[in-house]
Amino acid sequence: MPQVRHGTGPLSKPIVSPTPILDRAFVSAMSSDPALTLKTLPTPCLIVDRRKMLANVARLRGRLAGTGVTLRQHLKTVKSWDVARQILSSPQGPATVSTLKEAEEFGRRGVSDLLYAVCISPQKLDRVTALRRSGVDLKIVVDSVEAARSVAEHARATGDRIPALIEIDVDGHRSGVPLSATDRLVQIGKALQEGAELRGIMAHAGESYDRSDPVALAEAAEQERVGAIGMADALRAAGLPCPVVSVGSTPTGMSARSFAGITEFRAGVYVLFDLVQAGIGVCTLDDIALSVLATVIGHQREKGWIITDSGWTALSADRGTASQAVNQYFGVVCDERGRPYEDIVVLKVNQEHGIVAPRPGTGARVPELPVGARLRILPNHACATSTMHDRYYALDKDSDEVEVWPRFRGW
Amino acid sequence: MPQVRHGTGPLSKPIVSPTPILDRAFVSAMSSDPALTLKTLPTPCLIVDRRKMLANVARLRGRLAGTGVTLRQHLKTVKSWDVARQILSSPQGPATVSTLKEAEEFGRRGVSDLLYAVCISPQKLDRVTALRRSGVDLKIVVDSVEAARSVAEHARATGDRIPALIEIDVDGHRSGVPLSATDRLVQIGKALQEGAELRGIMAHAGESYDRSDPVALAEAAEQERVGAIGMADALRAAGLPCPVVSVGSTPTGMSARSFAGITEFRAGVYVLFDLVQAGIGVCTLDDIALSVLATVIGHQREKGWIITDSGWTALSADRGTASQAVNQYFGVVCDERGRPYEDIVVLKVNQEHGIVAPRPGTGARVPELPVGARLRILPNHACATSTMHDRYYALDKDSDEVEVWPRFRGW
Repeated sequence: MPQVRHGTGPLSKPIVSPTPILDRAFVSAMSSDPALTLKTLPTPCLIVDRRKMLANVARLRGRLAGTGVTLRQHLKTVKSWDVARQILSSPQGPATVSTLKEAEEFGRRGVSDLLYAVCISPQKLDRVTALRRSGVDLKIVVDSVEAARSVAEHARATGDRIPALIEIDVDGHRSGVPLSATDRLVQIGKALQEGAELRGIMAHAGESYDRSDPVALAEAAEQERVGAIGMADALRAAGLPCPVVSVGSTPTGMSARSFAGITEFRAGVYVLFDLVQAGIGVCTLDDIALSVLATVIGHQREKGWIITDSGWTALSADRGTASQAVNQYFGVVCDERGRPYEDIVVLKVNQEHGIVAPRPGTGARVPELPVGARLRILPNHACATSTMHDRYYALDKDSDEVEVWPRFRGW
Repeated sequence: MPQVRHGTGPLSKPIVSPTPILDRAFVSAMSSDPALTLKTLPTPCLIVDRRKMLANVARLRGRLAGTGVTLRQHLKTVKSWDVARQILSSPQGPATVSTLKEAEEFGRRGVSDLLYAVCISPQKLDRVTALRRSGVDLKIVVDSVEAARSVAEHARATGDRIPALIEIDVDGHRSGVPLSATDRLVQIGKALQEGAELRGIMAHAGESYDRSDPVALAEAAEQERVGAIGMADALRAAGLPCPVVSVGSTPTGMSARSFAGITEFRAGVYVLFDLVQAGIGVCTLDDIALSVLATVIGHQREKGWIITDSGWTALSADRGTASQAVNQYFGVVCDERGRPYEDIVVLKVNQEHGIVAPRPGTGARVPELPVGARLRILPNHACATSTMHDRYYALDKDSDEVEVWPRFRGW
């Protein structure tokens, strides 16, 4: 088992964790209902192939092995303790979250080394303080002087030097201090230091989702890495501390040629993968660990349609592949065991209906499946599809037995 | 109070319910937390303007008043008992649901006259029977001979003549027996009668969502009405019963010039309305009772962007206005009190980030709002946005006090 340090000190030194900790005391018995099998699951429902999930996690760990870079798993995709405890480096983390609800849910399970990777608003600071007082070493994020000042003021008022990262913008995706705005960056750092603790830099190369060429993806990763290092250096040149240089996205994690100079890497969707990531080219359809089980409820045979009970409440309305080279509509249709039918997609969805049809422009025909037959659908976006469900049903490859892994949602 | 008959007999005779029953015993005290006000709500969260909601319901009731047509509220949009008890004609219904979970949730609250308006699959019949044995007069839907046979077989095995409607397809939208296939319709009716009970015809003019011209909408409504009546006549001509002729959609409900010949009307989204319905032209922005409260977490001032804490987990990924004359992107941005800013929309969403920006092509500029300021966002699709939340926070116009109306989801 690798040596693991937990993030309760002022800085978690980068740790090398080539494999997840999977001793049996850690991964305790999952909820198991002997009556539940692939054949008896109610539909629609959400299925995870556990082996694929663990292989995906091992792949990114393998890429980071020996680099000295910590894998700070992003738990926003799975929002499930039963998944988290299988993929974290240790029961205490480190981990990334996208909501305070996630921080509270994982924090009360003992995941103490957490980064809340969305810029904080002042109204949320009381919950941050409550979490930190409960023993969770929660780090937060700001990207403006005004937010940094409110964090510092709150830190002074509560007597807790809340650690904060400054989000930077490496590619124009959404939040963050532009790379050109080093003066502002330093002002934010100084404002934080007036009571809170400047912990470092955070970057997310969100625009990498719009690329699909391996060279362009490697460039996006390099842009993320170099941008973060440059901003960290700007802080240090101003006499400010910057122990953490945190970057990450699934496409850049799978494509980076170097992790030099960064201290931690964050990624989440790669744990399950999805059609968007397959379209980007960082996984294959066979790597996708997530699918929606659906039942045939009717046909429009004249049109070549199968109607299923899985609409957008089950699949989500996410159309992330619409702008990719291969439009997968609302999902790729597979047989009940998860083997894709060629060129059969979920063409349209309503609230509780999915229309399964040949991909437009192909000569494909839907399989002959009676009412009551079952299908599996690979989703566009693992985060969005997961959010529509309260639990995963976990399958191992060689068994039809199912474990229930509860999920949560909300803020 | 109008005289109301509950659907426990073989047929609920059409009832006229010009106004919802709102006596104080029925609408008992809602959950109320004196500490919760518009100013203190955590974000993101979902707000309902109660007066607008009740006005919307009164509007469709007004259209149906005097026609002899029953309003069978579709509860798929709200999935909340606290809403249902304010909008149903009686505590027992009638109501429409889109999942068996809805039937179970509303059934255990006493809503006994229910139509599950999605074609049944054989695996779900045990739950139908359990519901019916618990006293819920649940009606189901089929559109194929094979499904009708399995329902009849199940009905014989359980000794319960399950009432079923045959779904017909009036506009090519998704499910249903085509209007040309009267032979198949009669076969389905006969198959049902071998143990179950043929209760009637169900139609949904889903393609009306793609129209926006009032004349075209009235035509869609007429197509729905005439199609249903024609198929009902085809059943009767074959010597089969057809007491119920059930049609409905929000656009056709708001546009129909006649309800003659139908016995009940179903609609759901009109209770809250949304940007898609405003784009269709059957409501105004001011009629929309639903909004998402969001907090400013940052800016990209060079780009004219405000970043909020409301991404697709709060708004849904639904882009229903993308194909309309006015693309509302991911929602129309309003001030904290719900007054729209002109040409300010949620341009992009990520999981927990929303990018507020001027509508492309306009010279609009985002308002000056600091980190921590709050906004409200009118959503594209009330059903989809509601599904992302576990509760509504209900506001009355003249007060900042908030009631909590829990929601459920799942199947």
